[in-house]
Formats: sequence, structure tokens, C-alpha cells
Amino acid sequence: MSVIDIRGIDESLASLLETELKRVGTIFECQLASDHEPVTALGMHVNRYRGKMLRPSLVLLSGLAAGESVGKSCVSDAHRTISAVTEMIHMATLVHDDVLDDSPIRRGGATINTLRGNEMAVMLGDYLISNAFYLCSSIGRPELNTLLGHTTNMLCEGEIVQLHYRDDLSIDEDMYLSIVNRKTASLIATCCEVGVMLTKDDPALRNAMRKYGTNLGIAFQITDDLLDLTGDQVEVGKSVGRDLDVGTLTLPFIRAFHQGSEEERRTLSALVRDRCHAQLRERLRSEGWVESALDTARSLISSARRQLDPLPDNSATSMLHRIADMVIDRKF
Amino acid sequence: MSVIDIRGIDESLASLLETELKRVGTIFECQLASDHEPVTALGMHVNRYRGKMLRPSLVLLSGLAAGESVGKSCVSDAHRTISAVTEMIHMATLVHDDVLDDSPIRRGGATINTLRGNEMAVMLGDYLISNAFYLCSSIGRPELNTLLGHTTNMLCEGEIVQLHYRDDLSIDEDMYLSIVNRKTASLIATCCEVGVMLTKDDPALRNAMRKYGTNLGIAFQITDDLLDLTGDQVEVGKSVGRDLDVGTLTLPFIRAFHQGSEEERRTLSALVRDRCHAQLRERLRSEGWVESALDTARSLISSARRQLDPLPDNSATSMLHRIADMVIDRKF
Repeated sequence: MSVIDIRGIDESLASLLETELKRVGTIFECQLASDHEPVTALGMHVNRYRGKMLRPSLVLLSGLAAGESVGKSCVSDAHRTISAVTEMIHMATLVHDDVLDDSPIRRGGATINTLRGNEMAVMLGDYLISNAFYLCSSIGRPELNTLLGHTTNMLCEGEIVQLHYRDDLSIDEDMYLSIVNRKTASLIATCCEVGVMLTKDDPALRNAMRKYGTNLGIAFQITDDLLDLTGDQVEVGKSVGRDLDVGTLTLPFIRAFHQGSEEERRTLSALVRDRCHAQLRERLRSEGWVESALDTARSLISSARRQLDPLPDNSATSMLHRIADMVIDRKF
Repeated sequence: MSVIDIRGIDESLASLLETELKRVGTIFECQLASDHEPVTALGMHVNRYRGKMLRPSLVLLSGLAAGESVGKSCVSDAHRTISAVTEMIHMATLVHDDVLDDSPIRRGGATINTLRGNEMAVMLGDYLISNAFYLCSSIGRPELNTLLGHTTNMLCEGEIVQLHYRDDLSIDEDMYLSIVNRKTASLIATCCEVGVMLTKDDPALRNAMRKYGTNLGIAFQITDDLLDLTGDQVEVGKSVGRDLDVGTLTLPFIRAFHQGSEEERRTLSALVRDRCHAQLRERLRSEGWVESALDTARSLISSARRQLDPLPDNSATSMLHRIADMVIDRKF
């Protein structure tokens, strides 16, 4: 159920995390249940998408790491509820992304848009967003609603700007990083910040955890883009090559294009224009641009890990280090 | 700017409403402005859609009607902000509805999905929803976030159930009314309830205004469906005949089908299946089913107006009566 390979880590933490993630899953499911059967049926389909639970894990682990000692008492109902909220927002973005990208496969199964049409996928995403905000307000801490609203505003802005730059070869690295920061890192950063905030009133630590999440999130999206560019559909568990299909340009290309010679630019433009995926991929790999993007992700991960210094040295903190490393090593 | 024909009504109220709706418009625009030019540009396009401002008008008028005397002092910042929130939610549903219905025309102009693709329309709707929740949380009254979240949950459920019943001839009047209550009346009821609630702590009055809004909203959707069935695109200002195009069955058809003879059902089924709009429309009109649906709307409007009895007898209350009547008489 968890993104995290829990082999070899502290056993009591592993078992605590597993129990808590199950509770989060129950909150998620109960919130989506409805008197109307077609609505409940859709909600159940969404459960199939829930695989990695990275965002709830980050909320819970950040909350646990900030506590005096790692234990049940550091996990409050608010942690569990906001965990379900972040997963719901994430699921909404997946459902709407699949409409955006016209993707047929997600987590090894057919996507809602393929099964039930784009219209149902749009409404399901809306239903998830709406329930996420409702659930968030049920915690009764208005600052959480403000933070969540701010986060989803950023997320949508990132998506809109990304759509705007489709097939626009002029997109540069700063714009790419700004998009990725908004569309992916903002929610991950909020997970880490809120996890700590619900355990302890410590603005400096909140700030550090927000930076951890931001760096982690950007690195995560860079490797996600690399998997889309170079990965295998069976291993990755979702459609690959979609970015190029829809004209979304990612870091290896952007770097190659801006740093390459005039001739190189012409070649790259033609490969993108003609959607020559295999050749483009091979060129970006052989010329070292894939490795160069991975280096950037590695450097972001180092920065992320440094932000964990103020945290107590406990098993949850170790796990946060480990998650950072996994972003680089992941094949999915 | 307003839905309301203000000729002949109290002049000071008309001028107050106009001023306040302008302020609401400014809040709306400022909230959607962004550092990213493509995002701001989209927000500005949305402004073109804003025509009737029915929902903000209901918030403001309900707030004014409940006050001791109708005047500026009864309109608070919270009224203005929540007015912008309700309009933003409404705009989001329009933008996503146009994706759902694949509509080319809205308020006499091309829809976002036609101009910029479905993907941009999906993201723009999400951006509107997100900003609505953010703006709502800025008021600092958590019960408003809960009420808004509950309302949008209902709204999405209504849309999902409606999609589920597309082309399903078995849909009955109860289900139709349940869908309409959720997808349209829930937000209108919340506007009326919140307007009063922000002026006066009077649970009975809140409840009455919620009922007023519910009846008004259901009647509004019935007449909206009638305009789609029988209206003229130029006069209505948006694509007509879309319900039948996508297989959404509305009150005149549902009533004719459930109350008609076996032979009548066969004829109606065939007309829907073959999308014979003109013939179906003519049959529903000549057999009295259009008039029968309009009677139901009239009766809902009478019920809505009775709910206004506990309100003080002032110019804002008169306007609420007038809005109710306009739902029946409208051509747009």
C-alpha cells in the first residue's frame, strides 16, 4: 500500500505507518461514499488508482519525525484527515491529467476517461476536489483550508502554464522548474509542512520541511519525466511517452535545446515536430542530457536531505531520508 | 450586469445593488489575477462569461432583505466575498459543463473548450474551483467552508448521476428532481442561506431562505431545460438542443414517457434514439408536456415566494419576489 520499501527499516515504525495508512484509506473511502450508487461506484474505481500513498506517508512521517518520540501519540485525527485530503487532491489531478493527456493506462489499469468518457472523468475529478475541501474544513482549523486553497491554486497555475507551453520550443529551464514547482512540488511541500505543523508549533521547522518537500517534489517530477521519456510501460505501470505525444517538453530536451549548437537545435526541433520518440530519446540519452537531468535531481535530493537536520534523530526522520533517496532510484 | 430587470424597482436599491455587484466583480477579477500571464489571460476570458450574476445578486439581496433597513450597512465584506465565491463556483460548472456537453457557444461567444481545447477548459474549471475555496477560507469563518464544500459535493453528485442516466429512458421524475436539486438548486439555496446568515443569526429564517433557494433553483433548471428544448439560440445566447444531443432527458420527456400509452412510449423512444429533435420538440409541445413542466415550475415558484413571508417587508424582499417571477417569464 505504501510507496516505501519498508524492508530493513525500524519494525515498529513500519507497522505504525501501515496501520495509519489503512486508517487514512478508510477515511478516504468513507468520504467518497454516497447515497447515489453511481457516485459510490466511481469512488470505488478511484480506490484502484490509490497505490503509492506518497503524500499521506509524508504527512504522517513528518508529523512523527517532529514528535518527542516516534509513536502513536504523535499521530492525531487531524494528521489522518489531512492525509486523506492530500491523497484526494492528488487523485483528482491524476484523473484530470488523464483527460489532459488522453492517457489510456494508469497504475496498470484502464483510466476513467477510457472507461467512462472524458465527461465522467472531469466530474469525478471535481467530486474529489470538492470532497477534499469539505474534509479539510471538517478538521475545524481554517488555516488548513487557506493553505490547501493556496496549494491547489499553485497546482492549477502550474498545469495551465504547462499547457500553454506545449510544443513551444522556447521554454527554458527556469520556466520548466517554475511549472514543476507549482504542479508537483507545492502539494508535496504542503504535506511535509502540515505534518510538522499539526505536531508542533515551530515556524522554523515548518519552513525547513516545506523546503524539504519542495526539493523532493521537484526531483520527483524530474525523475517522473525521465521515466516517461525512457521508461518501460509495464515497469512504470502507466502509459509512457505521453509528454512527447502531447508536446510537453521536459528537462533533458530543454537543456539539450538551449545548450546545443544551432545544428543540434534544428535536429531536435524536427524530431519533436515529427514526434520521432525513439530517435529523440536515444539522442538525449547518448548525448548525456538524461544523465544531466538526473544529476539535477540528485542535487535537489541532497538539498532536501540537508533540510532534515533540525529534526530529531529518530526512525521517522531516517525514513524521510530514505524516501528522498528512493526518488532517485525508483523505476516506477 | 445583473440578471434582474431593475426598471421600476426601488431606485436606491437598484443603485446599491449595481455598486455592490461591481465590487463583487472586482474581487472576482483580483482573485484570478496571477503572476503567470497565461493564467491571467484565461481569467480574463472567463470574465466574458459573467453575465447574469444571479447568485451574487441572491446573496446580496438575501442579506439586505434580512436587515433592519435596506442599506449599505447590511452588506459586509463577507457578503461581497462569498458572492464572488458563488459566482466562481458557478463559472467553474459552466466551463466544465461545456466540456461535458461539448458546447461550442456560451453567452453568445465561443466556449473555452472550443477556443483552447478541452484540456485548458478542464484546468480553468479546476483553477476557478480552487480559487473559490481559497477565497472562501479568507473570510475566516470555517462554517462557510463546510457549507460550501457540502454544496459542491452535492453539485458534483448531481452532475455524476445525470451523466449516469444519459440515454436511460427509465429515469423517472423523482430522479430528475433529485439531480436538479443537487446540480442547480443546492448552490442557489446556499446563496440565499448564506446571505441571511451573514446578516442575522436566525436559524428559522436561514431555513426558510434555503427552501426559497431550493424551490427557485429547481424551477430555474426546469425552465432552463425548457429553453434548451424549445428556445432559439440567438435569444437564449447559448447552444440549444444540447440535452438531446448528449442524451440528457428532461421533465417534459420524462413525464410524457412515464404517463403516455405503450404506443406513445415506442414513438418517443424512437425519436430520442434517432435524435429527431424537431419532431420530439413538436410532439412534447403539442401534447401539452412542455406546458405541464412549466406548471410544475410555476408551482415551485409559488412555494418559493411563500418562504419569503418571515422576511421584513422591504425593497430587497420585493426584489426576491420579483426574481422568483422572472424565472417563469425569462427567455434567456
